[in-house]
Amino acid sequence: MSKFNMRTASNLKIIPLGGLEQIGLNMTAFEFEDSIIVVDCGLAFPEDDMLGIDMVIPDVTYLKENEKKIKGFVITHGHEDHIGAIPYILKEIHAPIYSTRLTIALIDHKLEEHGMKDSVKKKIIAHGQMITLGKFRVEFIKTNHSIVDASALAIYSPAGVVVHTGDFKVDYTPVFGDAIDLQRFAEIGKAGVLALMCDSTNAERPGFTNSERTVGRTFDNIFAEHKGTRIIIATFASNVDRVQQIIDSAYKYGRKVILEGRSMVNVMEIASELGYINIPENTLIDIDQIKNYPNEKMTIITTGSQGESMAALSRIASNLHRKISIEPGDTIIFSSNPIPGNEKAVTKVINELAMKGAEVIFQDTHVSGHACQEEIKLIYSLVRPKYAIPIHGEFKHRKAQANLAIDLGIPKQNVFMLSSGDVLELNGGKKEFAKVTGKVLTGSVFVDGLGVGDVGNIVLRDRQHLAEDGIVIVVLTIEKESATIVAGPDIVSRGFVYVRESDELITEATEIVDEEVNIILERGVTDWGKLKSTIKSELTEYLWKKTKRRPMIIPIIQEI
Amino acid sequence: MSKFNMRTASNLKIIPLGGLEQIGLNMTAFEFEDSIIVVDCGLAFPEDDMLGIDMVIPDVTYLKENEKKIKGFVITHGHEDHIGAIPYILKEIHAPIYSTRLTIALIDHKLEEHGMKDSVKKKIIAHGQMITLGKFRVEFIKTNHSIVDASALAIYSPAGVVVHTGDFKVDYTPVFGDAIDLQRFAEIGKAGVLALMCDSTNAERPGFTNSERTVGRTFDNIFAEHKGTRIIIATFASNVDRVQQIIDSAYKYGRKVILEGRSMVNVMEIASELGYINIPENTLIDIDQIKNYPNEKMTIITTGSQGESMAALSRIASNLHRKISIEPGDTIIFSSNPIPGNEKAVTKVINELAMKGAEVIFQDTHVSGHACQEEIKLIYSLVRPKYAIPIHGEFKHRKAQANLAIDLGIPKQNVFMLSSGDVLELNGGKKEFAKVTGKVLTGSVFVDGLGVGDVGNIVLRDRQHLAEDGIVIVVLTIEKESATIVAGPDIVSRGFVYVRESDELITEATEIVDEEVNIILERGVTDWGKLKSTIKSELTEYLWKKTKRRPMIIPIIQEI
Repeated sequence: MSKFNMRTASNLKIIPLGGLEQIGLNMTAFEFEDSIIVVDCGLAFPEDDMLGIDMVIPDVTYLKENEKKIKGFVITHGHEDHIGAIPYILKEIHAPIYSTRLTIALIDHKLEEHGMKDSVKKKIIAHGQMITLGKFRVEFIKTNHSIVDASALAIYSPAGVVVHTGDFKVDYTPVFGDAIDLQRFAEIGKAGVLALMCDSTNAERPGFTNSERTVGRTFDNIFAEHKGTRIIIATFASNVDRVQQIIDSAYKYGRKVILEGRSMVNVMEIASELGYINIPENTLIDIDQIKNYPNEKMTIITTGSQGESMAALSRIASNLHRKISIEPGDTIIFSSNPIPGNEKAVTKVINELAMKGAEVIFQDTHVSGHACQEEIKLIYSLVRPKYAIPIHGEFKHRKAQANLAIDLGIPKQNVFMLSSGDVLELNGGKKEFAKVTGKVLTGSVFVDGLGVGDVGNIVLRDRQHLAEDGIVIVVLTIEKESATIVAGPDIVSRGFVYVRESDELITEATEIVDEEVNIILERGVTDWGKLKSTIKSELTEYLWKKTKRRPMIIPIIQEI
Repeated sequence: MSKFNMRTASNLKIIPLGGLEQIGLNMTAFEFEDSIIVVDCGLAFPEDDMLGIDMVIPDVTYLKENEKKIKGFVITHGHEDHIGAIPYILKEIHAPIYSTRLTIALIDHKLEEHGMKDSVKKKIIAHGQMITLGKFRVEFIKTNHSIVDASALAIYSPAGVVVHTGDFKVDYTPVFGDAIDLQRFAEIGKAGVLALMCDSTNAERPGFTNSERTVGRTFDNIFAEHKGTRIIIATFASNVDRVQQIIDSAYKYGRKVILEGRSMVNVMEIASELGYINIPENTLIDIDQIKNYPNEKMTIITTGSQGESMAALSRIASNLHRKISIEPGDTIIFSSNPIPGNEKAVTKVINELAMKGAEVIFQDTHVSGHACQEEIKLIYSLVRPKYAIPIHGEFKHRKAQANLAIDLGIPKQNVFMLSSGDVLELNGGKKEFAKVTGKVLTGSVFVDGLGVGDVGNIVLRDRQHLAEDGIVIVVLTIEKESATIVAGPDIVSRGFVYVRESDELITEATEIVDEEVNIILERGVTDWGKLKSTIKSELTEYLWKKTKRRPMIIPIIQEI
């Protein structure tokens, strides 16, 4: 035992927390002796079967148990799936946050909404800068992604160096700022890298992801071809470069621009303050000025490209928006791809727009923010890691990267497909070591309204049952002394079938309950638990026979 | 008024019933004077927000009101979205069914499950055959589709001829039977066609849909490349030609074949009886023989290509299947594309399969059964209709076909984008006429368990509410005479948050109810309706304040 402890004490531990399996719950703990750093702190949106859940955050039991060791949270970039859980997690764990300028600004905005802006320590780090966090040193490396200020991390530990790409792509001609710092990846690789944790999102796609700049050219073409109509463009609020290019095209073609949707306005304000977006004077107008300009002088950039029912575009499409409504001939551009699971919602919005006479354009107005196969191979070839740990993406995407790594010559046993909570111990020193040695408690926690974690699997199962077949409530009052029913049984249903109290189904069900309860009471039973279970089973059987449905049945007995 | 009647009496009426807007609810009434024929009778699967609904069928109020006129149901092919509602609709409307051999066999099987096989009159029609139905004559024209025995219809009325393509593609080299009868389309077109109702499903896609035969070549290649592993292929049960080709490849490579999934077994039995599939001797084996053959001699053809949770492939992937489980190295082929809305379910199954070590293949193992743009243009060019009525597909697809029709020279005002229930009156005679002149009551009816139509919008809204935030039930017994609470208030919740009775939230809520009720009772109020609404509003406010959730609140008062 003591021997085991000695060994593990000198290894680097990499622990994916939250859900490697659940897209969005990005969080990884790096541990070396008395030091832990946490990379990213994302939230996920609920799956279809998580009824009523607002969002999902990582279970950080392990971090809470080891809070003293935590030297800081290091954030790769400002997308929700990397920063979204910060206000929830930082309520429980007190540690400083380190990231780039825009990322910290977005985190600040988020913390402010939760009234936590001043209670969390934050530090802005520049690309190329190195910080020391306990036994670790962390270097921020410039990358490209669909949000500016994205970083890869070189994490230096006494057991070796780990390169973590974050979400990235290779863009040789980015719209804003520099291209990915490939030289630095090469330099670090040359010096020797223990492990590479690389973005797998597009690992199934061959080739290279196009430069963001190609979208700008498409916009120019579309603006040139649609000089006579209003142009409405839906895109991701956080894609500042995309918005920049739309504004550039609009300006070039003499149009005004309206930004619509809360997150769009927020992000652009922040980007503008930091000088990350350049808006020509007199181009941006307020939505209330919309009537002062003809349609053909108008461009609206809006949220809602994923068909989200509460976002601006959906409200516009279904005539629920207070200030914008679709007019026949409007040109609508989706500058986005549907995120898996959103296809149907997006299609619904497109159909609504088309029914109102709008022309909807989808093609060539989006590029991904993630590296395709050739870019992944490039990073592997520059970094030349001893071990590969595919991250970011569903299992099948990570598996595709694992296959690429093997193709590139990394031995199969050096490729680790980790699960959430796995403790991977690595050491690149003389006592070389690489093995999953344990598992910590983690997973996902549901956020519902103000509650964090108070909706668990039982509540969800009940919601699913209620959603499927509704509920039938049976109430009766029993006088204990005489063991007789003095009120009821009354049957109330919701979400079951459309019935009135007088309907045969309900009167028969009431009779069955009445009869059964009387039989049991006559036998002198005073165990209401038994009474309830009899009511439940009799009613379940009767309703199944009559309707082939199984509503949730709740017997309630009051005693006087 | 009498003049109006005279005019309408001599026009052809085309009335899309069910939901042109809802994919799957295919049903169109053709009416001329005292004759109605109904083309197709499909069902739709529920949308995400139709909680607990099993399926959706067309509202046929109009047909019931005009039952005497109905001469028959004419069915284009045997897919669920064209025959699925037959057992429900034919319970209410008594009319014979006309269709091709396989289609009738599939309908028979369906009617048998509903114990209705002998109560419905059916007649098998051959391609090229003409039937007389009241004032109509209907000719069945051979087409190609992803199920054999698909037909287009030429519907002859005194007001002119309508060509209805059904679902179709042009396959010059079909696996079974003949290619689409393009000559007959041309001949009918040459003689003069009033209107074309053409499949729009792929109207957004340029080019031609590949021949089904191309998939066979891909299977051969995959079988050649995977000689050492078990091959499991998921596809649509109704695609007999696809299954034929898989069996051919399996036979060629010396493998046995297992058919798995109830609908797969059913359809293949029917196809086999009719001689529509040709299975070499000793190739098909029973699932119980699976242990007698090594994996590399095994091919399993299964349902579940859409990720349906109850289908065989999902059960295999999640280890719930009784007889088949995934082994590392298994090759799984999805011979299908995800139908919009199923993407996430399919991805979930793929990830589960990949986690168990299977290789999942998606590429080039499916072709669509629907015509792309060039095929649609071909049919228009052969038929040369005066009017175009795009059918089958979402609004955006039908709109895309409308644009094609206009490109081909049909005047914009001759292209009709109909909505469900629209009555389009047409006449190609001297008194030429083409106009939507009315609207009949139609839409969709929910089927839930044994109930048809007893789950409406109120029940669905309740289910959505229950699914979102659960239910809180408040029960109390009041002695009327003394106007005092003699039992309760008791609070029971389900699907709300995880609470025990002792929790502060529940004890406080109980106190609030108790207090409010006593105040009202002391005021001498005996209107329990008022009491209930007070309980409801007080509790809603309290729970919103405490949890930011709005469960459904059901106050139940018993009186003794």
